[in-house]
Amino acid sequence: MSSVFTEFNLMAELHQPGDKIVLLVMDGLGGLPMQAGGLTELETASTPNLDRLAAEGITGLSIPIRPGIEPGSGPAHLSLFSYDPVRYEIGRGVLEALGIGFTLTPNDIAARGNFASADADGFITDRRAGRIGSDECVRLCAKLQAATGDLLADEGVQVFVQPVKEHRFVLVIRGKGLGGALTETDPLATGKHPLPVTDSSGSPEGERSARLLNRWVEAARQAIANEPKANSLNLRGLAKDPGLPRFPDIYGMRAAAIAVYPMYKGVASLVGMEIVEFEGDRPSHAIDALERAWNDFDFFFIHVKKTDSYGEDGNFAAKVHEIEVVDAIIPRILALQPGALIVTGDHSTPAKMRSHSFHPVPTLLWSPRARPDTTTTFGERACAGGGMGIFHATTLIPQAMGHAGRLKRIGA
Amino acid sequence: MSSVFTEFNLMAELHQPGDKIVLLVMDGLGGLPMQAGGLTELETASTPNLDRLAAEGITGLSIPIRPGIEPGSGPAHLSLFSYDPVRYEIGRGVLEALGIGFTLTPNDIAARGNFASADADGFITDRRAGRIGSDECVRLCAKLQAATGDLLADEGVQVFVQPVKEHRFVLVIRGKGLGGALTETDPLATGKHPLPVTDSSGSPEGERSARLLNRWVEAARQAIANEPKANSLNLRGLAKDPGLPRFPDIYGMRAAAIAVYPMYKGVASLVGMEIVEFEGDRPSHAIDALERAWNDFDFFFIHVKKTDSYGEDGNFAAKVHEIEVVDAIIPRILALQPGALIVTGDHSTPAKMRSHSFHPVPTLLWSPRARPDTTTTFGERACAGGGMGIFHATTLIPQAMGHAGRLKRIGA
Repeated sequence: MSSVFTEFNLMAELHQPGDKIVLLVMDGLGGLPMQAGGLTELETASTPNLDRLAAEGITGLSIPIRPGIEPGSGPAHLSLFSYDPVRYEIGRGVLEALGIGFTLTPNDIAARGNFASADADGFITDRRAGRIGSDECVRLCAKLQAATGDLLADEGVQVFVQPVKEHRFVLVIRGKGLGGALTETDPLATGKHPLPVTDSSGSPEGERSARLLNRWVEAARQAIANEPKANSLNLRGLAKDPGLPRFPDIYGMRAAAIAVYPMYKGVASLVGMEIVEFEGDRPSHAIDALERAWNDFDFFFIHVKKTDSYGEDGNFAAKVHEIEVVDAIIPRILALQPGALIVTGDHSTPAKMRSHSFHPVPTLLWSPRARPDTTTTFGERACAGGGMGIFHATTLIPQAMGHAGRLKRIGA
Repeated sequence: MSSVFTEFNLMAELHQPGDKIVLLVMDGLGGLPMQAGGLTELETASTPNLDRLAAEGITGLSIPIRPGIEPGSGPAHLSLFSYDPVRYEIGRGVLEALGIGFTLTPNDIAARGNFASADADGFITDRRAGRIGSDECVRLCAKLQAATGDLLADEGVQVFVQPVKEHRFVLVIRGKGLGGALTETDPLATGKHPLPVTDSSGSPEGERSARLLNRWVEAARQAIANEPKANSLNLRGLAKDPGLPRFPDIYGMRAAAIAVYPMYKGVASLVGMEIVEFEGDRPSHAIDALERAWNDFDFFFIHVKKTDSYGEDGNFAAKVHEIEVVDAIIPRILALQPGALIVTGDHSTPAKMRSHSFHPVPTLLWSPRARPDTTTTFGERACAGGGMGIFHATTLIPQAMGHAGRLKRIGA
């Protein structure tokens, strides 16, 4: 049931102290059988611990955005954090900036930058600049920072150019009176010229921002014009931090994000979670971090990436294996005695499709206060008959809040 | 998926005459197993008649307020009557006044009063005045009415003090220019002084109302200062009648409420139902009243309280028995040939938790027009797989309207 999106005012009014909550996200968890009559990745995996959680708790299928819609990672995570991504739209540039730990201010416009290759006439020949390495990206960003850092100082605007990885970087311009609804420069195909930044808001801030960004793009392309591969660039997802209501304020929980990839740290930061840094990139390392941070937070978001990556690769067996790896670390989470443990995905990434998909996402909510349903295994088919039904992902946190004893009664 | 709350305008436009509808509410119906692997109260009860209704009709789990939120009785009943309680907030004082049959006007502020015990310095020593009897409550209210009835006449405001039961009474002040957002005086703990009434609306009405109520409280406490137990009092839930859209206007049904407890009569009155008075307090007495009133109304709300009371007491066996008592009266309802019969709870009250809870509520809708689902018994687990799915309680009345042939087609 996805009757409602979460009313943050109501949650802010009703929250109270209670047990700890863990949200364990296997990215792209939902899958498909490779052949008709077969099993999905999750159904194929041997998951005795997750099956036990499904049997003791409740299950369901979550709709990340709207029925039929294939989610991107940013919106899908916002939704899991209970922010309706249709209502709260976040620019990719903002997510990318947050993802590398760049602290945005309300005066900033952030863009995701892509180094590209162009021919002598400026037509794009490779939108990823031959997938240059991350070291090369660092060098190019330093070059751009040196060449353009003071470019807009005459208009009171600062420029920051920061590497992400491979061909990707972040551009932030900072100053008073920036804003608008800004278009991307990427023509999304080779053999075309980049587009200018334009503003569709019609506001003075938008007009000014587009003009400044086009000035920067021109100067930046000149600065790298003689590079062998990355002799051009594009800007995408130009946006300001939307200033979302803060998760800790809404739910009264100090919230930790335990994730490896910048993107997920970025979304978590955006809603006011604190990033728990840790060594290593395997699920067991995330649980090491969880154990260390356990006493310092009320809510823990744990992100597992490789289920999605293997789905994107079309590697059914590897995705199955990664799910089994996660199953094996479940007892360590239970040993911490959370009041509610959610295991879900942000969206589906069936290996068969080699892509994110619109399919709803298998979800379980385990808690000592859960009322058992008829589900005894964790899988897409089983979840369809579970006690949570088909629900909107934005209701997951409130459901976990109830199970963790963290919501006061409404009315007498 | 129940993605919408009821649109009253649409209902008012589409309703037409049809068959009669019965809404049978077992308060706090939903439960939990006492031990892992066990059955809930409803699953334990022998309910051949309800099982037959579940088999012939459709079942589901209803969300009273929002996922994860534990409902109070007032909001939960408003929701069953199809009024979203997050949108339509009703003060407890209003419910209490309506519950004792006190007719509120738009000029009234109603408060729930609690007699209390205080020490010589005014610190509360018992918030319920030693749970004085109802006769004592009647005597004290008469005393207060005599002492304070004309207290505020100098400002054109009338005072009404009416007993409810035990330590509980209702205060109504009536006059022009009353209103605001008024706080309660109950410190919610012993060993503390009562609080003054304050207004958080910042309006002139609010300021005036707070001042008048504080005058009344002071005079009232003086009037009972020498009482052995009830020598103090507190006011809670101060509010005006919100003026809800009327149920008979929305649905085109003359609606009857058959309930014993004031609270439930109060909510029913608030939405424009008529109270059917009757002798006795058992489910069979309610059915006697149903039979007598059958020809005079289109819609019947029947309230059974003890399922909730036994849940609050932690008495699993008594709750099971009360469900079986209700099961036994089902044939008498069916003999009246309703077009739709809903059996549900307003919320869950698991004996295991001795409290209302956030868990969704098992619900069945029987009708000669129902399309059978796979459910063959009435229980929490069974309902999770039923044809209504997981739905918001506000959609129950429209669903019953459809089954009773009471809604016209929309469009050609």
